[in-house]
Amino acid sequence: MTRSAPAGSAVIPGAISWIAVDWGTSRLRVFAMDANDRPIASASSDKGMGQLSRDAFEEALAELVSGWLADGPRPMIACGMVGARQGWIEAAYGPVPGPALSETGLVRAPATDPALALRILPGLAQQEPADVMRGEETQIAGFLSAHPGFDGLLCLPGTHSKWARLKDDQVLSFRTYMTGEMFALLSGHSVLRHSLAAAADMSETSGSRFVEGLDRARALRGNLSADLFSIRARGLLQGFTPVEAFDYLSGLLLGAELTAAAETDADLPVALIGSGPLGARYRQALGHFGRDAAMMDTTDATLAGLTAACHTLKEAGEWPAI
Amino acid sequence: MTRSAPAGSAVIPGAISWIAVDWGTSRLRVFAMDANDRPIASASSDKGMGQLSRDAFEEALAELVSGWLADGPRPMIACGMVGARQGWIEAAYGPVPGPALSETGLVRAPATDPALALRILPGLAQQEPADVMRGEETQIAGFLSAHPGFDGLLCLPGTHSKWARLKDDQVLSFRTYMTGEMFALLSGHSVLRHSLAAAADMSETSGSRFVEGLDRARALRGNLSADLFSIRARGLLQGFTPVEAFDYLSGLLLGAELTAAAETDADLPVALIGSGPLGARYRQALGHFGRDAAMMDTTDATLAGLTAACHTLKEAGEWPAI
Repeated sequence: MTRSAPAGSAVIPGAISWIAVDWGTSRLRVFAMDANDRPIASASSDKGMGQLSRDAFEEALAELVSGWLADGPRPMIACGMVGARQGWIEAAYGPVPGPALSETGLVRAPATDPALALRILPGLAQQEPADVMRGEETQIAGFLSAHPGFDGLLCLPGTHSKWARLKDDQVLSFRTYMTGEMFALLSGHSVLRHSLAAAADMSETSGSRFVEGLDRARALRGNLSADLFSIRARGLLQGFTPVEAFDYLSGLLLGAELTAAAETDADLPVALIGSGPLGARYRQALGHFGRDAAMMDTTDATLAGLTAACHTLKEAGEWPAI
Repeated sequence: MTRSAPAGSAVIPGAISWIAVDWGTSRLRVFAMDANDRPIASASSDKGMGQLSRDAFEEALAELVSGWLADGPRPMIACGMVGARQGWIEAAYGPVPGPALSETGLVRAPATDPALALRILPGLAQQEPADVMRGEETQIAGFLSAHPGFDGLLCLPGTHSKWARLKDDQVLSFRTYMTGEMFALLSGHSVLRHSLAAAADMSETSGSRFVEGLDRARALRGNLSADLFSIRARGLLQGFTPVEAFDYLSGLLLGAELTAAAETDADLPVALIGSGPLGARYRQALGHFGRDAAMMDTTDATLAGLTAACHTLKEAGEWPAI
């Protein structure tokens, strides 16, 4: 069941208890939450961290939430790249191993209008191998609030996919895979762009070429360096269609990620936080590699994580102080 | 010894016996050759195949060679992407296994001025695994004319590196590695662009991080999917400098290529066609992996290959007919 509220829906400000903010590199999404921590309205814009100078964050937030604050301020809490060094204000990383939501490191954004002084959750940093996340730690916390004590691997697909090893409600370790960004670079900016269908023209996966790519990546143990160009050559020599090429490249890249991620902890259960076609591809790929994974919706996980952060603040007596 | 002539040097048209043309995706280079097949002048422009519509090739060529044709036409022969489907005119691929310079497939470009009717050499195509080359086959022919009977692997670094298995003066098989393009994409367009020095700011390789990247790629057996993002994280967490990051990424990508290319034919000698900093990096990487490689200069190889093509045409009685 997805808890996402319809975008732009009218809502009575008095029904809003707090505001959840998911502020990534490319998108800003806000959710009006009721007293039962359910979203009753949502809005979004393309004013992600990557598009904003430091002094533009407050206005970008005001654009989406000011209507909800008509009868007074509400506590607001955010996760994501808004807390990066290049964001509104830096929220220091919490350590790994450790809890998904660090008990220290929460910061208040400096705002001209005190009603817009957003709380921002810290990300997580791992020293060896060096790795960082911002935003996914909140989804992990949301997943753990729904599945307390989960002992296994959690996969979070995206531009930079994360794989986290969870145990005893802690993040023991994690790794980042640039799979989504690599697909975007290869399909949009490399010589392969001539060979691939646009994502918008992909209705459903063709299936067989995707699976062929998965199997090929596994056979190559994830070393794709000699195989990427074959997509171009198969188009020139063998009539490989743009849809087939898209699916094959997708299979190769996901297959390399899964081959690396599955090398350790081969016997542990795997769960997935995902949605839409990308979530479906990961689920299919995991199933093909014999790792059937339960999937939690991405927005549900984010809202559950922000809710968990609210409850922690309440227990510490720091909520709902605006 | 490099045979390259100084660019733009004045030359007496009567001393020119024929004209060698290296016409790739991004550059057009022409060489005035004397009766002993030595370059006595050269010129170049950025009018590569990728920048030209079909009707713009003749003028792009005329711009560089018309001064050399003052007292009459000269035979001209070209290799490279000028013969691609999107080029001036398509020169069909020769088969692999087979000779580097196919005896069929040479085409004449359609030109308004008959003096500009360039001969274009075909590329090579391999059916399984599917692969193609255009331009490198001429360098291979040039290498074989200097090293007849070479039995081993020939590595041709570039945007799309090629590795060819040579024996009995034939190309038995080859593979393409998108290493150079991948480096350009990751360093110029991915999240790693924030972490890497610009190529122009790299005077010499720092050495140690390059070797660390090579070793890491080998340890990962070339599956880089979990390791690329660590470059960003090491910059954020561990003070990894932009020069170190450049060298490490270069090492990772070359290491993955060499790991894949070395999996077969581990006992065969390796030779290299290269020049400049890229050639030096490949030579260092091959040496680090225990494959010391003799290196032939890229331009020398191209001119030797075009010269070999001229001689073949002469023996067939088709040269120097303009």
